[in-house]
Amino acid sequence: MKVLIVGGSGTLGKCVVEALKDEHEVITAGRNSGDIQVDIEDTPSIASMYKQLGSFDALISTLGKAHFGPLTAITNEQFYLGLNNKLMGQVNLVMEGMKTINDKGSFTLTSGILNHEPVPLSVNAAMANGALDAFVKAAANELPRGLRINIVSPTVLQESTDVYGPFFKGYEPVAGKTVAQAYCKSLENLSTGRVFKVGY
Amino acid sequence: MKVLIVGGSGTLGKCVVEALKDEHEVITAGRNSGDIQVDIEDTPSIASMYKQLGSFDALISTLGKAHFGPLTAITNEQFYLGLNNKLMGQVNLVMEGMKTINDKGSFTLTSGILNHEPVPLSVNAAMANGALDAFVKAAANELPRGLRINIVSPTVLQESTDVYGPFFKGYEPVAGKTVAQAYCKSLENLSTGRVFKVGY
Repeated sequence: MKVLIVGGSGTLGKCVVEALKDEHEVITAGRNSGDIQVDIEDTPSIASMYKQLGSFDALISTLGKAHFGPLTAITNEQFYLGLNNKLMGQVNLVMEGMKTINDKGSFTLTSGILNHEPVPLSVNAAMANGALDAFVKAAANELPRGLRINIVSPTVLQESTDVYGPFFKGYEPVAGKTVAQAYCKSLENLSTGRVFKVGY
Repeated sequence: MKVLIVGGSGTLGKCVVEALKDEHEVITAGRNSGDIQVDIEDTPSIASMYKQLGSFDALISTLGKAHFGPLTAITNEQFYLGLNNKLMGQVNLVMEGMKTINDKGSFTLTSGILNHEPVPLSVNAAMANGALDAFVKAAANELPRGLRINIVSPTVLQESTDVYGPFFKGYEPVAGKTVAQAYCKSLENLSTGRVFKVGY
């Protein structure tokens, strides 16, 4: 399959590339890295990415930003970081990708544990994750042409514990290569509308 | 208790008013009705509402709009109806209300069944609901001064079957007065961070 991995140069994305590259044609995209550059907050930029890509069989998204900070201090602009970037960035990857993806293709997005088990400072990320899980469950019922959509919801990665470990006390980290398997599962089996939790 | 019900003139809001009015001081707010007018998409309007209200013990929100339409035709603007109105409108009721609500006060928001059991055309509503459920779970851990927050997630109302019934085939409707009890529960017991599902 020809698989586009948006965020393929990130900590998790690299693990997904590694897991898929021997069996699939993998193209990566990212803000400042990868085979194609894309700003997921900008619909024309997404459309341009898909134009450069041509026909393809699967999109995997492993990126998206949200604000981390104490509830009482979150500004409106900070709330919209998670909504515009992690949430609508990934939604728009699907909405634009739907126009050119091959029949029976698949979309696999990324949310995370925080809407199920929030940590301090994670309100905005929790909101984005909750909306993404819901988007996938609802959108799966309405996708045309046999298209499928799932989402991977990992706990904190072993590879990210230097940065995120202090915020995830009591959360057993999971290896990126274990999380990568969930993207393979979404790609290779026939599930749709599933939230694949990994490590919790 | 002095309880503000935003959306108190709506189908569900009226049932909540009815359930609370004998035991509590109930003040209602709405876009074009109620004791105080408020536009929940406009933070200064929300701040003005709370200024008129003075000190209070509980906010109940029973309103919020989202877009209903087929996935493949949803525009960016339509996605943001649910995000700006149902989601961030209710979030901002909490963020502004937090400044003046009495110690140990409570917030009770409204989501709905659609992120758990989506119907056709409900992608945007599902997203807003999923984000709201997550907001409440995460925010509950960080609220100061003994404040509490919960959310009521009802299935379709008996009172709304004329309008929404055709979209909710196979969903047993629930009476508004039954749903209203969940708001009483949130108000009167000591729970926080809970999603109170009603009718499913």
